[in-house]
Amino acid sequence: MNDPELPACPLPIDRYPMVTMAHGGGGRVMNQLITELLLTAFDNPHLAAQHDGAVVSLPADRLALTTDSFVVSPLEFAGGSIGQLAVYGTANDLAMCGARPRFLTLSLILEEGLPIPTLWREVLAIKRACEVVSVHVVTGDTKVVERGKGDGMFINTSGVGELLSAWAIGPSAVRPGDAVIVTGDLGRHGIAVLAAREGLSFDSPIVSDCGSLVAPILALLEAGIELHCMRDLTRGGLASALNEVCLVSRTSLELDETQLRVDSAVRSACELYGLDPLHVANEGRCAIWLPAGDASRALEILAGFEICRGASVVGAVRDSGPGIVTARSAYGTSRIVDLLSGEQLPRIC
Amino acid sequence: MNDPELPACPLPIDRYPMVTMAHGGGGRVMNQLITELLLTAFDNPHLAAQHDGAVVSLPADRLALTTDSFVVSPLEFAGGSIGQLAVYGTANDLAMCGARPRFLTLSLILEEGLPIPTLWREVLAIKRACEVVSVHVVTGDTKVVERGKGDGMFINTSGVGELLSAWAIGPSAVRPGDAVIVTGDLGRHGIAVLAAREGLSFDSPIVSDCGSLVAPILALLEAGIELHCMRDLTRGGLASALNEVCLVSRTSLELDETQLRVDSAVRSACELYGLDPLHVANEGRCAIWLPAGDASRALEILAGFEICRGASVVGAVRDSGPGIVTARSAYGTSRIVDLLSGEQLPRIC
Repeated sequence: MNDPELPACPLPIDRYPMVTMAHGGGGRVMNQLITELLLTAFDNPHLAAQHDGAVVSLPADRLALTTDSFVVSPLEFAGGSIGQLAVYGTANDLAMCGARPRFLTLSLILEEGLPIPTLWREVLAIKRACEVVSVHVVTGDTKVVERGKGDGMFINTSGVGELLSAWAIGPSAVRPGDAVIVTGDLGRHGIAVLAAREGLSFDSPIVSDCGSLVAPILALLEAGIELHCMRDLTRGGLASALNEVCLVSRTSLELDETQLRVDSAVRSACELYGLDPLHVANEGRCAIWLPAGDASRALEILAGFEICRGASVVGAVRDSGPGIVTARSAYGTSRIVDLLSGEQLPRIC
Repeated sequence: MNDPELPACPLPIDRYPMVTMAHGGGGRVMNQLITELLLTAFDNPHLAAQHDGAVVSLPADRLALTTDSFVVSPLEFAGGSIGQLAVYGTANDLAMCGARPRFLTLSLILEEGLPIPTLWREVLAIKRACEVVSVHVVTGDTKVVERGKGDGMFINTSGVGELLSAWAIGPSAVRPGDAVIVTGDLGRHGIAVLAAREGLSFDSPIVSDCGSLVAPILALLEAGIELHCMRDLTRGGLASALNEVCLVSRTSLELDETQLRVDSAVRSACELYGLDPLHVANEGRCAIWLPAGDASRALEILAGFEICRGASVVGAVRDSGPGIVTARSAYGTSRIVDLLSGEQLPRIC
């Protein structure tokens, strides 16, 4: 892919068209990669200090920490790429804790032979996504593994966020009677990655929902809505997220299946591949547990954000036996929504 | 390796002898890996919350952040293993910033087929190393890649530390006249990994120096010694560390080569392989820039720590032309100690 809109790569691609073992060797070639490509792209005073770590100031004494490694295959898909996914994924995890993302660390594991233009494209994707969520990459690390010992690139992003809520947000705060909101339609990301991997094309292209949930979640918190728990719907999809929270919070959940949105192209692809959209990964959707009385105000606020178009109340927390998620269909029938026993679509994040 | 001293693995190894794609799929098998193996081993209230991130409290408003991915091959070597290396490496980076390590994040990228007992051994190695440096793993992530798309296991550890120094420690604080201490003999780690990789055996076994520098560095700070800069001597060895700091601080450094310690077995192995011990990686050694008048007191303090046995003043900072490291030999001759242009021993950390 050659995008004329991208800034030119600052490394001499004619001399080093691809990543070599020397790029991870601690010598001059690695130094050039770090100073000319990475430090130039992410230019900020923390990185410019070129120390073993970054020293940062935070007003809060309660912080949120999170870490994620990204191994998505392929690196690029409709609607996103590994670099964007890494930043939004980690920023979203901080938002799920009720925190404003502040600082990011970036660690790359590159496979020998990765084209430098691919690396540059992902560095720019990381930079743009950092701008969207208002974080800086403050420290980083780069490793190179031999050809056949990695898969292009893996990215770890760890994040530090400043807690905005005075109360604890998480599974332990879930209460019987809570409403559960899902912030949009389901299954886009998993199917977009599957399509890129298998070279599939659908009548209407399926674009990943990969995006930042930071702004809408901060808006809910700033409006004073007492969110009890949030969980983004990544690996294992909505089903895993709900089951995990029900198990830890010892509550049950009854879903109203008519309130779950699935795009018709996603639904068709799921039928074709024998997938349940409730198990397919999303990268810009979350479930929110909150007092039922606040649900309609929350939906009004979420409606102001493009990424939350289609948010709705999908269910309510019950105290009838812990850890069970059920879904009631339009026909009034009810089924148990379980964790998958194994894996369905590997390496979607 | 079966070590009767290790606690038994809590997973049913007969049913799941090795890592499968399902261990990263977001379903029941992954949930079991996380709750029964990882959460059991690292048991603490932050992890027990099973949220997307951890909420931590820190009294300081100035924090040190660092991140490192570890791709060492092989996973185990004389004197250490990838898990131990990951914890000590990240803790040492925080110490280099003048910070007490407080919280660690742990992200695993596992290759399908990795034996579960190997994973368990590394989890226990991580746990033990965390105890040594008094940190907790507060949040984590696990991914699985297909056989042939990784190499056993890669580990990312990111760390948050509490700054102990009121002043900025780093290359920008280096001053002409500063003494430079190196905290022990050079080259053990790189040669120990090379030996494990190539199946070499030496007359006297070479054991990695992999270890924690946290206690000795905190002791120097607590004694009120105004450390200017510290750098651990990992990839690229002493030569890279000194060159990097000289380049960023725009100073020069004259080394007294007679003050550099290299074990005789390490020296023989380096001669055999055409390696310069100054370029070989260490994992329990650092260089310290400090006011010359404080050097002897610092050496007295360091002498109290086994890992700093053999610490000595190895040189002094000059203002003659920026960015040059020279070494004066026992014969009075002088040579330039440069960054390597490429890589020498890949994947030592």
